[in-house]
Amino acid sequence: MMARTIQQVVEVTFRYPVEFTEHLFQLDNPVFRHAVAPGSSAKKVLVVVDDGVTKAHPSLVSDVQHYCATHQLNLVAPPLVLPGGERAKQDSAHVVTVQDAINTHGIDRHSYVVVVGGGAIIDLVGYAAATAHRGVRLVRVPTTVLSQNDSAVGVKNSVNAYGKKNWLGTFAPPAAVLNDRHFLTTLDDRDWLGGLSEAVKVALLKDAAFFAFLEEHATALRARDLAAMDHAVYRCAELHLQHIATSGDPFEQGSSRPLDFGHWAAHKLEALTRYELRHGEAVAIGIALDSTYAHLEGRLREEAWQRIVQLFLNLGLSVWHPLLSEKLDNPQDPGSLIAGLNEFREHLGGQLTITLLDDIGRGQEVHEMDHAVLKRAVSLLERIQKQGEVCPTPTPAR
Amino acid sequence: MMARTIQQVVEVTFRYPVEFTEHLFQLDNPVFRHAVAPGSSAKKVLVVVDDGVTKAHPSLVSDVQHYCATHQLNLVAPPLVLPGGERAKQDSAHVVTVQDAINTHGIDRHSYVVVVGGGAIIDLVGYAAATAHRGVRLVRVPTTVLSQNDSAVGVKNSVNAYGKKNWLGTFAPPAAVLNDRHFLTTLDDRDWLGGLSEAVKVALLKDAAFFAFLEEHATALRARDLAAMDHAVYRCAELHLQHIATSGDPFEQGSSRPLDFGHWAAHKLEALTRYELRHGEAVAIGIALDSTYAHLEGRLREEAWQRIVQLFLNLGLSVWHPLLSEKLDNPQDPGSLIAGLNEFREHLGGQLTITLLDDIGRGQEVHEMDHAVLKRAVSLLERIQKQGEVCPTPTPAR
Repeated sequence: MMARTIQQVVEVTFRYPVEFTEHLFQLDNPVFRHAVAPGSSAKKVLVVVDDGVTKAHPSLVSDVQHYCATHQLNLVAPPLVLPGGERAKQDSAHVVTVQDAINTHGIDRHSYVVVVGGGAIIDLVGYAAATAHRGVRLVRVPTTVLSQNDSAVGVKNSVNAYGKKNWLGTFAPPAAVLNDRHFLTTLDDRDWLGGLSEAVKVALLKDAAFFAFLEEHATALRARDLAAMDHAVYRCAELHLQHIATSGDPFEQGSSRPLDFGHWAAHKLEALTRYELRHGEAVAIGIALDSTYAHLEGRLREEAWQRIVQLFLNLGLSVWHPLLSEKLDNPQDPGSLIAGLNEFREHLGGQLTITLLDDIGRGQEVHEMDHAVLKRAVSLLERIQKQGEVCPTPTPAR
Repeated sequence: MMARTIQQVVEVTFRYPVEFTEHLFQLDNPVFRHAVAPGSSAKKVLVVVDDGVTKAHPSLVSDVQHYCATHQLNLVAPPLVLPGGERAKQDSAHVVTVQDAINTHGIDRHSYVVVVGGGAIIDLVGYAAATAHRGVRLVRVPTTVLSQNDSAVGVKNSVNAYGKKNWLGTFAPPAAVLNDRHFLTTLDDRDWLGGLSEAVKVALLKDAAFFAFLEEHATALRARDLAAMDHAVYRCAELHLQHIATSGDPFEQGSSRPLDFGHWAAHKLEALTRYELRHGEAVAIGIALDSTYAHLEGRLREEAWQRIVQLFLNLGLSVWHPLLSEKLDNPQDPGSLIAGLNEFREHLGGQLTITLLDDIGRGQEVHEMDHAVLKRAVSLLERIQKQGEVCPTPTPAR
C-alpha cells in the first residue's frame, strides 16, 4: 500500500456563435429560431426579459410569443419580466424566481433559457441557469452597448453578495449570443455612451487603429449615429472574443487579467456611489485614472495620455467623480478609493495585478501602485473635469 | 449594417493530482502541505470537516491545526465542523455557512478551501467554493470508499433542491484530491461495502479483469481486508479519471452518460427511501436491475448476468428493495420506480440515454426501456434477494 499519484488532465471545449442582427423577433428573421431549435427537435424555451426593455419596447413580450408560435418553438410560458439594472443583482430573490421557473417548467440541460436585457439581468439569469442541473443552455440577447460589446459575449455570470459586486458566480459559456442593434436605439444617452468605455479599453489594450476610429467618430457616436455604433460594438466584441479564445486562461485560473484594465477603480467607484454610477461610466473614470497614473509615472507619453482623456471628454464621459477624491489619505478606510486596490486583489486572488499602458494599443502588468502618484492623478483629473478640457500635466513626466 | 456571425471557441484545461496516501495529517507526511502551498507562498487555508469523521477520529481537528502550525500553513480559523451525509445536501443553510466563512476570512481565488468527509459534504462544500468569487480552489479529502473511488475524483459538485438530488450544482474540477486510506478503516460496514458498487460498475463498463479481481477478492473485501480495498479504490478511481479525461465530454454537454450506468433506478430509490438507502447501496440495486433487464431482453448471456448478481450477494450488497416493487403498474405515479426514467431524462436533458451491458466489460446505449421487461426484472431480483442466491431465469432469454 504505497503512496501513488494520478495526474489528471481535463480538457473542455465550448463553442458558441455571436450573431449580429436587427429586429430579432421579426417573423422573417431566422436567427432566434436557429439558436433555440438546432436540428429539428423542439426543445423547451423559457424567456426572461428585463423590465427596462419592455418599457422601451412595449410589444416585445407579445412579439416573442408571436414569433415562437409562428415558428412552432416550445415556449413553456409567457416571458417572465424581471427588474434589470445593477440593483437587481443585489437581490438573491430574483435568482430563486428564475430557478423556480426552470424547475416548474422542467427545463433540462438540453432546453434553453433566453435572457433579453442589460448586462445585470444577463449576469443574474446566467447564474441561475448555470447552477440549475449544473447548467441549462443559456441564450443571451443583450440590449445595451455594454452587454453587446463586452459582458454578454464572454464566459462569466454573477450576482452580488456580502455587499460585493459579483461575489457569487460561475464561468459558463453561453449557447449563443444574439446582438440585436435595434435595441440600442432606445437606450438613454448614459447607457448609449457609457458602453463605449469598454470599446476604448480594448482599443487601448489591443488595437491602436480601433482607437483612432473611435477618436474620428466620437462626434458621430455622441450624436447617436447607429452605423458608427454598429462598428464600435462589433469590433469591441470581436477583440474581447479573441482575447478570451487566445489568452490561454479563459476561466481566469491565474492572476493575469488584462481585460480588467481600469476596473479596480471602476468597481470601487460603483460601490462607493451605490451603483448610481453605471459600470461603463465608472470604467471610463477608471481608465482615465490608470492612464493618468501611467503618464505621471513616466510610462505613457504626454500626447498619448492627452488623446485618451480627450476621447472620453469628446464622448461625453466623465473622467472624475467627487467620491474619487474622498479619504485618499486613509487607504484603510472602506470609503477610500485606494481600499479598492486590495478588494480587487482579493476578488482576483493571488498577487495584485494591474495593467498599465505603455502606449495606445499596448499594456503591461504591474503589481503595485504608488499611493502618492495615485493622489496626484486624481487631482489632475478633477481639474480637467472641472475645466472641461485636457490641461498639460503640472509636473513633467520623469 | 449587415448580419454577421463570430463563431467563438473556448478551450479550457484543468489539471489536478489525485494522491493516494495514509495518515494525511501526520506531521511527516508532505502530501497536504504540497497541495495547499505550491511554490513558497503561504496561501490562506479554510478547512471544513464532516462531523461523522470527527466522531470516528476525535483528534482530527487538533491534528489539522497542529499540522498547519508545524508547517507554517496559513490556517485562517479552526476547522469548521458541519453535518455530513446526504441529508446535509438538502439544507441550503450549510452552503451559506461555508460561503460566510469564505467571505469572513477573505478566501480568494488563489486560496484553498479544504473539505474532509464523505461525498455529500464534498459536494456541498464544493458547490459553495465553486460559486464564491466564481470559484476558489478546492482540495477534497474524501473519507469514504464511494467518495475516494468515484464522486470526489471527478469534476462535479451539487446540493439538492426542489426535493431533487443534485438539482443545483456546477462543473468545477478540484485543485487536488487527497485519498487517505486510513479513514476507510473506521467506516461502518454499510459505507465500506456500499462504495464497492461503483467499482463493480466501472469494471462492468470498462475492465473485465478488474471485475474478476473483485469476484476473487469478494470474501476478503467483505472481511475488511485493507489491501484488497486499496487496490479496488485505486483501480476504480483510475478508471473514472481515465473516462473523464478521454470521453470527450467531461462537462456532459451531450446526452451520453455511460458512467451513470444503473443510476436512473438508484437515484429514484434513494429518493423513494428518503435517502435511508445510501447511494452505493442504491447503485448496487440499480446495476443488478439493469443487468437483469439486459439479460431478460436477450442482450446479456445468463452466465455473465449470474456472475454480476452473485458478486453483489457475495459483497453483502442487496440487489432488491421493497420500494422497487411498488406501483409498477402506475408509471406516472411519482412513487413508482418507473417514474425515475423520466426524472433521469430530465436531469440529463435531451433524449433518455441508458447504458446496458452486452457483456462484462462492455456496455451499449439504448434510448428506451420496456416497462413489462422491467417488471419481470424486479420480480426476479425480489426472488433472488429473498432466497439469498441466484436462481436461473424463469423464462429463457430470447
